[in-house]
Amino acid sequence: MRTQIAIIGAGPAGMLLAHLLAQAGIDALVLERRDRDYVEGRVRAGVLEQTSVDLLRRLGLSERLDREGLVHGGTNLALDGQIFHIDMAALTDGSTVTVYGQQEVMKDLFDAAPARGVKIVWNAENVALHGLDGSSPSVTWQDAEGKHHLACDYIAGCDGFHGVSRASIPASVLQVFERVYPFGWLGVLADVPPAAHELIYANHERGFALASMRSATRSRYYVQCGLDEKIEDWPDERFWDELCLRLGPETGAKVVRGASFEKSIAPLRSFVAEPMRWGRLFLAGDAAHIVPPTGAKGLNLAASDVIVLAEGLIEFYKSSCITGIDRYSARALSRVWKAERFSWWFTSITHRFPDMDGFSRKLQMAELDYIKGSQAAQRSLAENYVGLPLAAA
Amino acid sequence: MRTQIAIIGAGPAGMLLAHLLAQAGIDALVLERRDRDYVEGRVRAGVLEQTSVDLLRRLGLSERLDREGLVHGGTNLALDGQIFHIDMAALTDGSTVTVYGQQEVMKDLFDAAPARGVKIVWNAENVALHGLDGSSPSVTWQDAEGKHHLACDYIAGCDGFHGVSRASIPASVLQVFERVYPFGWLGVLADVPPAAHELIYANHERGFALASMRSATRSRYYVQCGLDEKIEDWPDERFWDELCLRLGPETGAKVVRGASFEKSIAPLRSFVAEPMRWGRLFLAGDAAHIVPPTGAKGLNLAASDVIVLAEGLIEFYKSSCITGIDRYSARALSRVWKAERFSWWFTSITHRFPDMDGFSRKLQMAELDYIKGSQAAQRSLAENYVGLPLAAA
Repeated sequence: MRTQIAIIGAGPAGMLLAHLLAQAGIDALVLERRDRDYVEGRVRAGVLEQTSVDLLRRLGLSERLDREGLVHGGTNLALDGQIFHIDMAALTDGSTVTVYGQQEVMKDLFDAAPARGVKIVWNAENVALHGLDGSSPSVTWQDAEGKHHLACDYIAGCDGFHGVSRASIPASVLQVFERVYPFGWLGVLADVPPAAHELIYANHERGFALASMRSATRSRYYVQCGLDEKIEDWPDERFWDELCLRLGPETGAKVVRGASFEKSIAPLRSFVAEPMRWGRLFLAGDAAHIVPPTGAKGLNLAASDVIVLAEGLIEFYKSSCITGIDRYSARALSRVWKAERFSWWFTSITHRFPDMDGFSRKLQMAELDYIKGSQAAQRSLAENYVGLPLAAA
Repeated sequence: MRTQIAIIGAGPAGMLLAHLLAQAGIDALVLERRDRDYVEGRVRAGVLEQTSVDLLRRLGLSERLDREGLVHGGTNLALDGQIFHIDMAALTDGSTVTVYGQQEVMKDLFDAAPARGVKIVWNAENVALHGLDGSSPSVTWQDAEGKHHLACDYIAGCDGFHGVSRASIPASVLQVFERVYPFGWLGVLADVPPAAHELIYANHERGFALASMRSATRSRYYVQCGLDEKIEDWPDERFWDELCLRLGPETGAKVVRGASFEKSIAPLRSFVAEPMRWGRLFLAGDAAHIVPPTGAKGLNLAASDVIVLAEGLIEFYKSSCITGIDRYSARALSRVWKAERFSWWFTSITHRFPDMDGFSRKLQMAELDYIKGSQAAQRSLAENYVGLPLAAA
């Protein structure tokens, strides 16, 4: 078998890239270790930057997004019960974010795949990458039909943090940067109306809380928790009590309680591996970098990575020019690091750190107080929240 | 003896307050442990915010400042040899900072004191504060003429970090917040023309460097150094070599070497004691708070503290209303904490921390890269640099 681009992983990075390449007439094959139900069922991010929305529109895949997505022109910060609104649209050039779950994005990408010639191999086991540092890379895998070999020009590693792609790069050529946070997020999904029209990021003395949503009838809530906590210790009633306490009565949040149908604890991590290319392999999305979820940059970074990567590949197949390919890593990383900075910063000012001394706590309050009173600071927050522009080509 | 306000310390806070009170016809006496030559000779800050310049104008004490001060509409950041300019005046409503040494400010304040009825007792030893929690506070001290007792309405503690004023407040009522930095500043004064028209804050792999000045013929330079370093190990030649290395050839800095006439190592510290009032005692300036020198907020905070304090006292003597007095601590602290945040942040993005991991270093570079490309971020830096407005009365 032969293709132009082998794409490892059918998550957001892999599927967005596959659609971008298909649109440009470049042959690609997506290899996915799991089946569609599993990938589509994963509960992940829910807030799309303008850049991501624009990408789905450009792909002609925004029909449902445009109908069902909730456009937010602002967001809310809450500090010790006091709320203040960041009017993102007014502070930027009218940019917004759109609430539309990753599960919905995946459904749209998968539904449209057959008609657009996007080919996916499900349940591809033992995926291995070969010849990355030569001129004839290939991928092998196993499935119910046996062993397979795929020759290709390039490989896009879109298989997430634990995937085989990054692990295929010799450790000696990768620089790894990491920060682990001393807490996790306990998240709950419930089919109840959201507590507020827009998101509320609350910094409460008992810890961070986030009131988010997936739709007008589905709420997504989080509370900061210890890394050693167990789901069993958080029956719904306890979760709702804690959430209401942290959002506080003065934020105007109207929490409607209901049975949760998803509940999980996720650790928070910042991670970047550099460069994002080794020989014939490009890394994109979580395979190369992880952000803490505060500010919802993960899925959006996957989208901006593959926009840049697709530009490079399309240029290469059109004109044999390798400039775009060679610039991919530096160009993607420029935006990645700014998003890493924002996600770290937004986490820092909204969470309670167990080892936080009094000075750090006061700095946090001073920063929130400063943001409250400064249009420049609000504008900076807003432009990061809606998504910084792609680095120049 | 009796006065309305006893002012402890003839530094910038004490002397600015004394002039403000004299202008309003309120009787005050300044007690200073040292003599005029000592106080005036101390090499300290050199950059005045707009607020501080406005205060000196309001006091009619800006004649020499207006003639000799260097007005800066911008400042420069340098990262690994690349320089970029922050156009503060354009980014704010035309605000600037003015280079005019603390020594010059003190000279002007002392020179004008006799004609304006500002009374100073020099060489006041063993100053002690009494009755702070009652209605009849007083101060005692000793000098060549013997022991003295001064009854007063209120006491203004303007005697710096090591002074007696803060130490007179019971530890149980003070909350103290502190951060010590793992490095110091080695500073040099030399009568050579400045390396650049405006300041350069350089983040170099060997550590921070700052090219500043006191006048068109006097330069003030600093390099970040270890806390265990000794002045003897830094002969002029070594200092100039290190400075030039850190400023780099591409910043355009033209360092003119010359004999230093002041050379010292200062530790960096963030410190705030709350509240800034206890009974009949008000703390102002360094007596209540210390900032690391990055961004030059120390003297300027002293000025904004006493503006707020003077407003409260003038209101009290005019109308017996104690609202301003009662609001002093909270109102002053609101600005103090924002300046603490800025000074900490500006220190964080410009210095190399010995224990800095790769992720922190990358965040620092991402932040500088972000500032470079974002008008909102530059505006935020600029508005803090020229000085945030006083908190509303």
